[in-house]
Amino acid sequence: MHKIPLDIIRRALQEDGGDYDITTLSTVPAEQQATGIIIVRQAATVAGLQVAAETFHLLDERVGVEMLVKDGDSVQAGHVLAQLSGPARSLLSAERVALNFLGRLSGIATITAQCVRAVEGTRARILDTRKTTPGLRELEKDAVLLGGGHNHRFGLSDGVLIKDNHIKAAGGVAQAVKAARHMAPHLLKIEVECETLAEVREALEAHADVLLLDNMDIERMRNAVELVRHQAPGVLIEASGNIGTNPERLAAVAATGVDFISLGALTHSAPNVDVSLEFA
Amino acid sequence: MHKIPLDIIRRALQEDGGDYDITTLSTVPAEQQATGIIIVRQAATVAGLQVAAETFHLLDERVGVEMLVKDGDSVQAGHVLAQLSGPARSLLSAERVALNFLGRLSGIATITAQCVRAVEGTRARILDTRKTTPGLRELEKDAVLLGGGHNHRFGLSDGVLIKDNHIKAAGGVAQAVKAARHMAPHLLKIEVECETLAEVREALEAHADVLLLDNMDIERMRNAVELVRHQAPGVLIEASGNIGTNPERLAAVAATGVDFISLGALTHSAPNVDVSLEFA
Amino acid sequence: MHKIPLDIIRRALQEDGGDYDITTLSTVPAEQQATGIIIVRQAATVAGLQVAAETFHLLDERVGVEMLVKDGDSVQAGHVLAQLSGPARSLLSAERVALNFLGRLSGIATITAQCVRAVEGTRARILDTRKTTPGLRELEKDAVLLGGGHNHRFGLSDGVLIKDNHIKAAGGVAQAVKAARHMAPHLLKIEVECETLAEVREALEAHADVLLLDNMDIERMRNAVELVRHQAPGVLIEASGNIGTNPERLAAVAATGVDFISLGALTHSAPNVDVSLEFA
Amino acid sequence: MHKIPLDIIRRALQEDGGDYDITTLSTVPAEQQATGIIIVRQAATVAGLQVAAETFHLLDERVGVEMLVKDGDSVQAGHVLAQLSGPARSLLSAERVALNFLGRLSGIATITAQCVRAVEGTRARILDTRKTTPGLRELEKDAVLLGGGHNHRFGLSDGVLIKDNHIKAAGGVAQAVKAARHMAPHLLKIEVECETLAEVREALEAHADVLLLDNMDIERMRNAVELVRHQAPGVLIEASGNIGTNPERLAAVAATGVDFISLGALTHSAPNVDVSLEFA
Amino acid sequence: MHKIPLDIIRRALQEDGGDYDITTLSTVPAEQQATGIIIVRQAATVAGLQVAAETFHLLDERVGVEMLVKDGDSVQAGHVLAQLSGPARSLLSAERVALNFLGRLSGIATITAQCVRAVEGTRARILDTRKTTPGLRELEKDAVLLGGGHNHRFGLSDGVLIKDNHIKAAGGVAQAVKAARHMAPHLLKIEVECETLAEVREALEAHADVLLLDNMDIERMRNAVELVRHQAPGVLIEASGNIGTNPERLAAVAATGVDFISLGALTHSAPNVDVSLEFA
Amino acid sequence: MHKIPLDIIRRALQEDGGDYDITTLSTVPAEQQATGIIIVRQAATVAGLQVAAETFHLLDERVGVEMLVKDGDSVQAGHVLAQLSGPARSLLSAERVALNFLGRLSGIATITAQCVRAVEGTRARILDTRKTTPGLRELEKDAVLLGGGHNHRFGLSDGVLIKDNHIKAAGGVAQAVKAARHMAPHLLKIEVECETLAEVREALEAHADVLLLDNMDIERMRNAVELVRHQAPGVLIEASGNIGTNPERLAAVAATGVDFISLGALTHSAPNVDVSLEFA
Repeated sequence: MHKIPLDIIRRALQEDGGDYDITTLSTVPAEQQATGIIIVRQAATVAGLQVAAETFHLLDERVGVEMLVKDGDSVQAGHVLAQLSGPARSLLSAERVALNFLGRLSGIATITAQCVRAVEGTRARILDTRKTTPGLRELEKDAVLLGGGHNHRFGLSDGVLIKDNHIKAAGGVAQAVKAARHMAPHLLKIEVECETLAEVREALEAHADVLLLDNMDIERMRNAVELVRHQAPGVLIEASGNIGTNPERLAAVAATGVDFISLGALTHSAPNVDVSLEFA
Repeated sequence: MHKIPLDIIRRALQEDGGDYDITTLSTVPAEQQATGIIIVRQAATVAGLQVAAETFHLLDERVGVEMLVKDGDSVQAGHVLAQLSGPARSLLSAERVALNFLGRLSGIATITAQCVRAVEGTRARILDTRKTTPGLRELEKDAVLLGGGHNHRFGLSDGVLIKDNHIKAAGGVAQAVKAARHMAPHLLKIEVECETLAEVREALEAHADVLLLDNMDIERMRNAVELVRHQAPGVLIEASGNIGTNPERLAAVAATGVDFISLGALTHSAPNVDVSLEFA
Repeated sequence: MHKIPLDIIRRALQEDGGDYDITTLSTVPAEQQATGIIIVRQAATVAGLQVAAETFHLLDERVGVEMLVKDGDSVQAGHVLAQLSGPARSLLSAERVALNFLGRLSGIATITAQCVRAVEGTRARILDTRKTTPGLRELEKDAVLLGGGHNHRFGLSDGVLIKDNHIKAAGGVAQAVKAARHMAPHLLKIEVECETLAEVREALEAHADVLLLDNMDIERMRNAVELVRHQAPGVLIEASGNIGTNPERLAAVAATGVDFISLGALTHSAPNVDVSLEFA
Repeated sequence: MHKIPLDIIRRALQEDGGDYDITTLSTVPAEQQATGIIIVRQAATVAGLQVAAETFHLLDERVGVEMLVKDGDSVQAGHVLAQLSGPARSLLSAERVALNFLGRLSGIATITAQCVRAVEGTRARILDTRKTTPGLRELEKDAVLLGGGHNHRFGLSDGVLIKDNHIKAAGGVAQAVKAARHMAPHLLKIEVECETLAEVREALEAHADVLLLDNMDIERMRNAVELVRHQAPGVLIEASGNIGTNPERLAAVAATGVDFISLGALTHSAPNVDVSLEFA
Repeated sequence: MHKIPLDIIRRALQEDGGDYDITTLSTVPAEQQATGIIIVRQAATVAGLQVAAETFHLLDERVGVEMLVKDGDSVQAGHVLAQLSGPARSLLSAERVALNFLGRLSGIATITAQCVRAVEGTRARILDTRKTTPGLRELEKDAVLLGGGHNHRFGLSDGVLIKDNHIKAAGGVAQAVKAARHMAPHLLKIEVECETLAEVREALEAHADVLLLDNMDIERMRNAVELVRHQAPGVLIEASGNIGTNPERLAAVAATGVDFISLGALTHSAPNVDVSLEFA
Repeated sequence: MHKIPLDIIRRALQEDGGDYDITTLSTVPAEQQATGIIIVRQAATVAGLQVAAETFHLLDERVGVEMLVKDGDSVQAGHVLAQLSGPARSLLSAERVALNFLGRLSGIATITAQCVRAVEGTRARILDTRKTTPGLRELEKDAVLLGGGHNHRFGLSDGVLIKDNHIKAAGGVAQAVKAARHMAPHLLKIEVECETLAEVREALEAHADVLLLDNMDIERMRNAVELVRHQAPGVLIEASGNIGTNPERLAAVAATGVDFISLGALTHSAPNVDVSLEFA
């Protein structure tokens, strides 16, 4: 897990105007205390609970948050995630931002957990992608971890993934791999995107460390995996390309024997988990 | 529309490491030029196209972007949204961040447009809420406008919405409205949340300007509207509370005669629109 | 009140070089303790005392500040506002910045209180404007509140005030009000500026929520108020336009029956209140 | 003059919400062009005109500003300072912030110029102090220069001014001067505050480079000047302490022969100059 | 190369007060133009020339900089690196900051190039480390590239290097490698630090991808290399640990057959290259 | 000493990725505690120890740092500077950044102390220059103080140093000094650079407060000093220009009787001091 990104929370609070909540300031006395619970309205894998707690703290350090579950836990509908107590004003003014974080990140963890369950018993790991919400990548990649998934590279500066256009520009797979090997820090592996078996063969000859099988149907994927395992047993294989989060589809992809399945939908289309704050 | 938020785009590019894209730097010559198109894979209402264009510009001001549609346009699957030309490196390094903005914001505009169509012919306006992605509120509220929806207040500092807890703290609806009227700038109307007809009556007596009917069933909502129109014709009415984006449900809510329907799902659960960049 | 704006205080301290006060560092031993009082040299309504206290704390969290009055209190010349104790270096290095805040904000609260007293017994509220010091709007608007005044809108994004040029551009008062009503969040009222009775009539016909009577003489203002009260009893009226802070003038304006009098001079020309720090 | 502080202008625009001026966005068409003039309503020395021009540019780089006078010029009431042309929306949305800068800074330059005229023919220079508006020190010190005044030190890190408390802490004037001389960069002169002739003598013996005569009456000041000129002709003399901006008082102080008169009122209590934007 | 870090340059200019260079502002007329050359006083490999050029541009965009060599070129003492022309004030005020960048970064490139020459003809690459100047890592790592060296990982988040303490904490080499393999993105190789041949054998058994031979003498290093090449030909070998920049020492290390030699001294102790700006 | 610059430390930690140290996060349990010592491998004058301690605190406030020496102390090789205890992860993740500060700043203090010793018994003070690492000027100037040296001006805005080009632009030494005297705050002395005895004479006639003897050989420097002491006993003299850190050379320069010797090498070419963190 990354450290709680205080600056992102601060910006979200500022964006919501929580430090000048006219309704609350005018109707709730400064000294009034309140208690409340955060409750989840559907079965979910929790993520963002610490972020939500920190949101209350950043608005007002006097708010107490007792977490009754921890990030990564799976819970049923109606479960109480945390108890809050403190100045009523602060609970009210921070509520929406805290729940926005919690609902969105739990959404990602929940859909990830479903995908991970779909491939249980295979060697396949569920990976995220760079298709994350602008500004929230670290939080969203952590939510994937909490759901039982794994992280692909964080960005363009800390991983090498050679795609079609890089190959064309470099003048061929061999040249592209060689150029990347020359410039990239030596701790980085070189991954090459392949759409056909011919491209798989070229990538193996170029000594790629990892292959990304892009948009292949199950049959071709199975052939590709077989080819790789036979010719280059140390090479890793990732399946990608609009695979989606349907469990049967995921199981079929995993059954081909790939090492990784990467899914943009984990982060770009996860439905919000319904959470709410109830005052005592 | 708000101004394009350059700082948010810059942060997204930085987060993605686009200024040190090892793969591209090592395999694509600095002087190589490229052209490409941004294409949408499904029917959609476009939002975020200007943001995407600015993303390319911020990474490299030499990238040319010709927009073939404009934000707010509705297009069919396969439509080309824009043509790009410029240094191949820059097109490759900015691609993902640009598409992340475009896919997410178009997702919001598209679901909003569907909801707006569902209530056509009624007086009801579709509104967004404060359930937006932390850090992206302005962009997401603009996407709602582009989809034909309307904006609720931007945050807690520029609108008054008195809920259950405010009423309890203030000692009653009348006291709460009066306190808010005293403190809030005189250009702000006072909205009061009501769950029962009794609460509707109280709010009217307290001279609320706007009523929010929360979590009412259709029947009760219809009664509430009738009551308001009869007793206080100038008062506005908003329906809210897990209404969702189902067209039939929306039509039924609109048929009660409310002025506004506010929907958290527009921004917290809109599925991504599938967009991609194809190189010539 | 807004939260104390720590970033503004930090910038002020940095601007003053207080973290490297050569004089103090070279002449005062690090371990030397001191006590002092903040004293006001003239009758005043206090504002900025908490900001001043926070200024000392931000420079050195070991400085103790005991406030003997609170923001909003009215005091006589010679009154001691606070007692300070802590490292002598820190008291000396933060003194000027703390007093700059205190003197300026008390100046605003003091002149506001005078204006509020001038209209006592009438329905008129004293309002601030957007003529505030760049960068200090929140602090200055809070000082107006402390002096007994009320806040007009905070900025252009959270209120609608249609002036002459908007009307011309929209093609008439009716069109301008309609356009604003369409785009603005529904919690915002629409205010229209009027210089003549004819314009007042037009604005009422266009269903403006609030009228701003600009630069009218007392006689015309009285007529305008009468007209509005008669035709549209729910509509609010604001007087504005170089009214100034002269008590007689204010009383005369208030006597016309307007709801609000807005005064740029509260914030752009308030003389500093003379405050100083005396060491024991 | 310092460089135009773009970050301060940006913060002021953001504070005013000028990038989402609802009134203007809803009533004025995007393509509408406008022209206008900035006019001054009273005799004044102009300062902040370049800042105002930059304010319009920062909101919209398409706004053209032709300055008809330059910062530092003295003008009569009714003088046109600049002509503006560009998108009507941008002129309207930036107007208030631009005028807030211009009115305040011209206020400082104008009062400074009056003080400078009051001491004409003497050796005395009019100096500012550190009693400036938090966040605006550079702009305000530049406005003093434009009014014909001179700048005292900018802050605590770039000048040495030993006051009563420093002397007590150091164990005497001689020790304080010596300590400051040891630590301060060798390009800094050492100034010592004196309230009595005895203190003046001590400071001279301690080899202070500059004396600040604080809160002395005219008679004592004259004696002090005489003493210094006789005993230490190279030493500079500054008069300070609630001298105020009354011309007769200033002339009397200058007539004592001091080198500098420093005035907090130049920056903390200068009344705003009345400027406005008129559309064609 | 990374993009030129404008924010770092801006901070350096601000730190130097170049926007208010009192000496230059008071003595050099605003309109005076000047030309000058940047000249190097010793044989060097150039780095930071583009950064220096950008420094002048950031202070004043009117300064023209014609680069006569490019970053990475090796030049003799007395070589002219660039010609400058523009406002004399701006050339003078930006000079020191520009040369500070150029001298430091050229120092790094120059010592790197010497080390690279020392191992020419061997397979060994010269690598940098994380022992860089706080705040300047990207610039310094680019300077190493310009000198012909290669980059080790940029930071702790984009590479895995298991040291002694990690091994102890994990309960052994095998456990540590396995744990890292589980959590780290799959594109990262796992490097393990070894001080003895026994540790080398353990690391190989644990399937480390890369070995770091730390503080070994030449004899032991040679044995280690032999062992690795024999048992695990795909594994990469890095030599490290106070090797220093002495050419004979470097040649001896390289002769052992290692793949990489990493040197903290490239960045933490490179002597400045003497560069100066001469006005025409 | 300046306050510890937390923002600079934060940036350095962020640059190093210490908040997501994959190696440590995957191999070291969250709850594991550790203790360690910071040890110096060579004789040195310590600087940056408080900065290093703050680096650990900023990464994790639970890390305890007990300093066994204080900044400015001189120690022998093998001396233990501090003891650390706390979460093992945090010690490991902050180690490199903390040592980077400590090694670099101690390097500056150490070379400064050597130069100070070389001129002991003379009146000459050792000064730093503006040839500092971009972004670290305050820290480096403090390290010079800790080594027994003195600070020259901090930047261009807080000191006047008239060089050849300023003189040419102003039309002569007399004009340049007069212009600077007119504009600069009156607490600043005026220093003039001289390369010949003729220039020394001119500067004295122009009433410069300080002379900088640039690039003079020992003989000429001695003559210059004699001339100044004879003609203008109050004027200060600084020697500068590639003097270097050789003790004999420094002693010879000091023997000429100058007041100051300024040395760029103190900050731009100080070799790192070897410090390391050893776990118990």
